[in-house]
Amino acid sequence: MLNIRYEKTTAPKELPAADNPLKFGTIFTDHMFLMDYEEGKGWHDARIVPYGPISLEPSAMVFHYGQEMFEGLKAYKTEDGRTLLFRPNKNAERANNSNKRLCIPTIPEEDFAQAVKAMVKMDERWIPTKPGTSLYIRPFVIATDPFLGVRPSNRYLFAVILSPVGAYYPEGLNPVKIWIEDEYVRAIKGGIGEAKTGGNYVASLASQVKAHEEGYSQVLWLDGKERKYIEEVGAMNIFFKINGKVLTPELNGSILPGVTRDSVISLCKHWNVPVEERRISVEELYEAGKDGSLEEVFGTGTAAVISPVGHLRFEDHVLMVGDGGIGEFSQKIYDTITGIQLGKVEDTLGWTVEVV
Amino acid sequence: MLNIRYEKTTAPKELPAADNPLKFGTIFTDHMFLMDYEEGKGWHDARIVPYGPISLEPSAMVFHYGQEMFEGLKAYKTEDGRTLLFRPNKNAERANNSNKRLCIPTIPEEDFAQAVKAMVKMDERWIPTKPGTSLYIRPFVIATDPFLGVRPSNRYLFAVILSPVGAYYPEGLNPVKIWIEDEYVRAIKGGIGEAKTGGNYVASLASQVKAHEEGYSQVLWLDGKERKYIEEVGAMNIFFKINGKVLTPELNGSILPGVTRDSVISLCKHWNVPVEERRISVEELYEAGKDGSLEEVFGTGTAAVISPVGHLRFEDHVLMVGDGGIGEFSQKIYDTITGIQLGKVEDTLGWTVEVV
Repeated sequence: MLNIRYEKTTAPKELPAADNPLKFGTIFTDHMFLMDYEEGKGWHDARIVPYGPISLEPSAMVFHYGQEMFEGLKAYKTEDGRTLLFRPNKNAERANNSNKRLCIPTIPEEDFAQAVKAMVKMDERWIPTKPGTSLYIRPFVIATDPFLGVRPSNRYLFAVILSPVGAYYPEGLNPVKIWIEDEYVRAIKGGIGEAKTGGNYVASLASQVKAHEEGYSQVLWLDGKERKYIEEVGAMNIFFKINGKVLTPELNGSILPGVTRDSVISLCKHWNVPVEERRISVEELYEAGKDGSLEEVFGTGTAAVISPVGHLRFEDHVLMVGDGGIGEFSQKIYDTITGIQLGKVEDTLGWTVEVV
Repeated sequence: MLNIRYEKTTAPKELPAADNPLKFGTIFTDHMFLMDYEEGKGWHDARIVPYGPISLEPSAMVFHYGQEMFEGLKAYKTEDGRTLLFRPNKNAERANNSNKRLCIPTIPEEDFAQAVKAMVKMDERWIPTKPGTSLYIRPFVIATDPFLGVRPSNRYLFAVILSPVGAYYPEGLNPVKIWIEDEYVRAIKGGIGEAKTGGNYVASLASQVKAHEEGYSQVLWLDGKERKYIEEVGAMNIFFKINGKVLTPELNGSILPGVTRDSVISLCKHWNVPVEERRISVEELYEAGKDGSLEEVFGTGTAAVISPVGHLRFEDHVLMVGDGGIGEFSQKIYDTITGIQLGKVEDTLGWTVEVV
């Protein structure tokens, strides 16, 4: 149990206006959680202080050697005024899996959860209430040792910041166009692909820029070894519904184990919808498209929850999914998960945690 | 040509004592070079200011999405008091190759060189003069946009900091023990392996920690696809001398194009020593070890210049190189490159640049 020190802001900011579309990740709340780590001393000095700049030596290792880990989850306001988090224990667990791969000291899961809850409680007035909005929570760790040289840092900063965000698709679910990448590779087995860390995201930018220039909104990554098997899409996991069966690539060491991915698989099992985690090749996908058995394609992630895919392109081959609209199953998944998150659908799987 | 603004420190630090062993990357000089980038405005406000902390929003993209690039080179003091840089144009060129892969705006090569020279001139008194010492120069770029979301940043900071460093091996060249990694992978073709960026270094830490625990000082990386071909060692490139021929892995997209690597290849050509850049398998290396044709193994990098390898281990197979001492060719390369760097050996290849 952390003994959190509080320093309240003396200049609370004005909340965004009700008609503010809350562009993702641009507005931050009044406070931030900080906690330091020092070799031999462990994690210490947990504190909630006014949101503001972080001061680091130019030699801080995070600027040079990429030792950084982040998480993303959301807090929701229910109609009856309660504040809910969605599966925060999964983020605490994944944070430590990432930390281990990156040689960052782990954070006790209950401390991670406490920090998140304390921050949400502190800045609760910032949780937006319009349909589709939420308070995005960004816990992250950076290496702060002022040292040039390749080794794990001896000092770290763990921070939690909050940002009120609008609906990812303001006009509702809208099928996206996906570019299947055949030049760049995001990650490989044995690398850092299953950790949530900056190195994977910077690796994806050149491909994203290229896809945008071609009129595609997201990139679908193939495995780095054979360049045949589907891994994940942009910053999301990917699902296919083929012949009544729900398929998603298995966690093979280079795929991020998404919390929404896990939730979709659990819901399928709960509903007795056949679901498989396994290798899926581009060829299998295109064949299912050709023979008419490909019913739906959708991405899953915390930001958008569900992102239906209506159109894919691999080299010169375009694949249209269904009639280009939202699939019935995608919509059902979206309605169920967002319903649970907002306390409108019964939480039979025990996924929500109330912040009191 | 940059119009650099100068703000001199009013509290110059004391230089390290003459008997200070100058542990790599721990002491920094009086000043730092900074320059900002903003979308639409380009690089601007070049300045040399007192060395000190950098203040960034907690949402600064470098903390989350790994958009960071660095370089490393050295300044040397000759016996007759001149200040020399070693091939700074190669670093300026590589910086931009890294920038392009990472979607960071490029820096005009002449501006990069000017920034490095101006900093070395400013803090010239910090260049140590004891044998084997030098002034390590660390130019780097970080993404500073206060934004959560995956896209290239719209703002960056370019910085140059300096650190007086001791000889990498204070007791002279000393053969190291190398662990050939068969579990983790550093980089893959299509990824960011040829860019000098944090993501590659954080990916290497877990393996380095494991190798250290086993009593090995460095890790030798194999290709991520077939796990058969040699790529690079720790933060260095690697060379083999087999049957009179000098071999090094070819630049295949996942190997860092080292400046010292390039210098060794150039010297071989200059000396009419046969040199080949090509794929080299672990099997070929071990066979050469067995049949007695493996003469020398050495790593190359800015920090150590040459790092002779006396012992390698792949799975359970240990390979001893020669008699475990320094090879004649390794020593010749080391003496020549450090001799040129210090102005003691004629610079027939035009590699040094004097800072005036």
